[in-house]
Amino acid sequence: MDFENIAKLAKAASLEIVNLSSETKNAALLAVADAIETNSEKIYNANRADLKDAEKLVESGEITKSTFNRLKLDENKMRDMIQGVRDIAKLSDPVNKTLLKRELDTGLVLEKVTCPIGVLGIIFEARPDVISQISSLAIKSSNAVILKGGKEASNTNKTILDVINSALDKVEGFPKNVVSQVFNRSDVAEMLKCDKYINLIIPRGGNNLVKFIKENTKIPVLGHADGICHIFTDETADLELAARVIIDAKTQYPSACNAVETLLIHKNFPNREELLKKIAAADVELIHNPESWAFEYGEKKLAVKTVENIDEAISHINTYGSGHTDCILTRESANAEKFLNQVDSAGVYHNISTRFADGFRYGFGAEVGISTNKTHARGPVGLEGLVIYKYKLRGNGEIVDDYSKGVKHFNHKDLI
Amino acid sequence: MDFENIAKLAKAASLEIVNLSSETKNAALLAVADAIETNSEKIYNANRADLKDAEKLVESGEITKSTFNRLKLDENKMRDMIQGVRDIAKLSDPVNKTLLKRELDTGLVLEKVTCPIGVLGIIFEARPDVISQISSLAIKSSNAVILKGGKEASNTNKTILDVINSALDKVEGFPKNVVSQVFNRSDVAEMLKCDKYINLIIPRGGNNLVKFIKENTKIPVLGHADGICHIFTDETADLELAARVIIDAKTQYPSACNAVETLLIHKNFPNREELLKKIAAADVELIHNPESWAFEYGEKKLAVKTVENIDEAISHINTYGSGHTDCILTRESANAEKFLNQVDSAGVYHNISTRFADGFRYGFGAEVGISTNKTHARGPVGLEGLVIYKYKLRGNGEIVDDYSKGVKHFNHKDLI
Repeated sequence: MDFENIAKLAKAASLEIVNLSSETKNAALLAVADAIETNSEKIYNANRADLKDAEKLVESGEITKSTFNRLKLDENKMRDMIQGVRDIAKLSDPVNKTLLKRELDTGLVLEKVTCPIGVLGIIFEARPDVISQISSLAIKSSNAVILKGGKEASNTNKTILDVINSALDKVEGFPKNVVSQVFNRSDVAEMLKCDKYINLIIPRGGNNLVKFIKENTKIPVLGHADGICHIFTDETADLELAARVIIDAKTQYPSACNAVETLLIHKNFPNREELLKKIAAADVELIHNPESWAFEYGEKKLAVKTVENIDEAISHINTYGSGHTDCILTRESANAEKFLNQVDSAGVYHNISTRFADGFRYGFGAEVGISTNKTHARGPVGLEGLVIYKYKLRGNGEIVDDYSKGVKHFNHKDLI
Repeated sequence: MDFENIAKLAKAASLEIVNLSSETKNAALLAVADAIETNSEKIYNANRADLKDAEKLVESGEITKSTFNRLKLDENKMRDMIQGVRDIAKLSDPVNKTLLKRELDTGLVLEKVTCPIGVLGIIFEARPDVISQISSLAIKSSNAVILKGGKEASNTNKTILDVINSALDKVEGFPKNVVSQVFNRSDVAEMLKCDKYINLIIPRGGNNLVKFIKENTKIPVLGHADGICHIFTDETADLELAARVIIDAKTQYPSACNAVETLLIHKNFPNREELLKKIAAADVELIHNPESWAFEYGEKKLAVKTVENIDEAISHINTYGSGHTDCILTRESANAEKFLNQVDSAGVYHNISTRFADGFRYGFGAEVGISTNKTHARGPVGLEGLVIYKYKLRGNGEIVDDYSKGVKHFNHKDLI
């Protein structure tokens, strides 16, 4: 089937899944989790076939060893996959929440209610566990989803999706085509231009993938390319606290998007040398004259810059940062507040590691992704990023003409 | 100055205006209103110069008579302009609202706080009153704004902006370059590609303008092109109510985006002929075989289609509609609820004219525009459409490593 037909079916499915109760959606999710558990051997077999081919690609240099590792499904990943689906079933339903209820006039009631966005397009790289996670998030939020994974994982991806769809087929009243998958390279281009049917693109992968997608579509993209996070060590920062936070932010998972890339130090911070010594002792390479201040190392390298004052720090971050997560280390609460208000990033932190920028750590229960957008959803995005709202207005034959002529008047009384 | 420099200054201004208190912003708005009042003669003079040129353009057919009328500032429009600015001053500040406050662990508090989007780009047609309105909305929401109006209004636009900026210059602490304006045709193209500095584009004008903008930018666009609204007269609709609502929805302001374009009638509705007769008597031309079901007449013409049942009505609307505002007329509340849930539009109405889709009628106090987007803001958009949020996290040296190793645990306790 060509992409447009798949997208058309997904759109139709999105209009049907909107009718499902929370109970049916949760039953579907539990059925999916059970099916993955029951069929794990089948999934491992498919994964072994992919890994066999991938070994050759690693040898020939077509894929990296780390891509190979992300592709590999082991018992831990399988367990996390299954548990992840069950956890999403436990979350509260993001759809049909009343955000506003207002009487416009007697008997004329406006309601603002959350509803699904429609059809999600997901483009992801090696990790096959994305399929069960994103499918579950889509089902929970009553969206349809079209997935496009990397070709090196195609056996695994196909098998997982077959398992998911076989399980969904058995759930009474669950519409067909809610979760579908495409495999051809050309499908990416088709997806990016399919704004007629696809309402939101979510890329899951490295910077280059995300940049490519953002540059090649008019469909809204939820995600982030760079994660150039900063820590500013103010004049009054505590040395021990600074060392602990910076080392965690750089080394706990250096390739994470919320790892720190640049350390700004106030020129009057008295413990500069001790601080840098402690950081270097944690196996971090300090770079004093980087080629660019807007570079994401993704490894144990940290650019270091001395700044005149907090204003230079804020201005540096707003110029070179990626609007992801930035932190001030200070004992001056006035400086902390100034930094938190003026740094234009999704996450603005005081005395804490940038690595906390994460949907699970924020208590969202699930993470759709981390967004550096300035509209819709910003920062770690939970299920609420997959819904929008509609206005329901119920009346008794009211007409605008009466209000425009002053025969009737609005009272605008909030009911909740 | 070239566009990129203007945009750069606007970006810098956006980072400064974020610091202003509600009091300063409201004082600035009142100063703007007073200045427009004081300088109204100067503005009329500039407008007369534009009108003189525009007369020739009407004669030569370059602009329509209705564009000419929109361009013309009379006493009513001037009074509305001034009052509009004062009304925005009275609204509650959309910035710095706490949306969530959660203790992640003892002493570790996450706050989700509304903040401005950054720089707005406004492209508008003849109406010069857009300038004071959008500038005021931007100031109130702590955004910077770059305006590009039609060339036929350039004297008026320039004069109004000079008056506004002279007033803002005198407000203590108010940053420069919050409101700026560009005049060249090439500036539109520059604006649309300036995603480095501009965060949101808001078009104010006809379908063609909005379509052109949406097709030529990767910057998020808040607005709608078509407004193809439907009314479905169900089997049990009340004849008198149906006639009243449909006539209001079509004739009260036929060129409005929320005017009805297509009437769907259930095949078993017993009063079909009487209903159509009443509508025709209100000077509405009924079109039974339109060239397209997806056409916005914008005048007293109404396409009419008979449908088998409510499902066909819903499916017709989801296929040909523009996701703006659609209504069911029925006495069956189960049908009403089905329609409200399954029609995928920003506004879904029961027994009421589609013309109610409007920010003022909804009680928002101001309207940024009406959006048919599926992300960020949908339907009539008030000031909340001009803000996003950031996450503030305040700690005492916490590191992720402790939580990842199980030394510490999150408690995720909501504080508000």
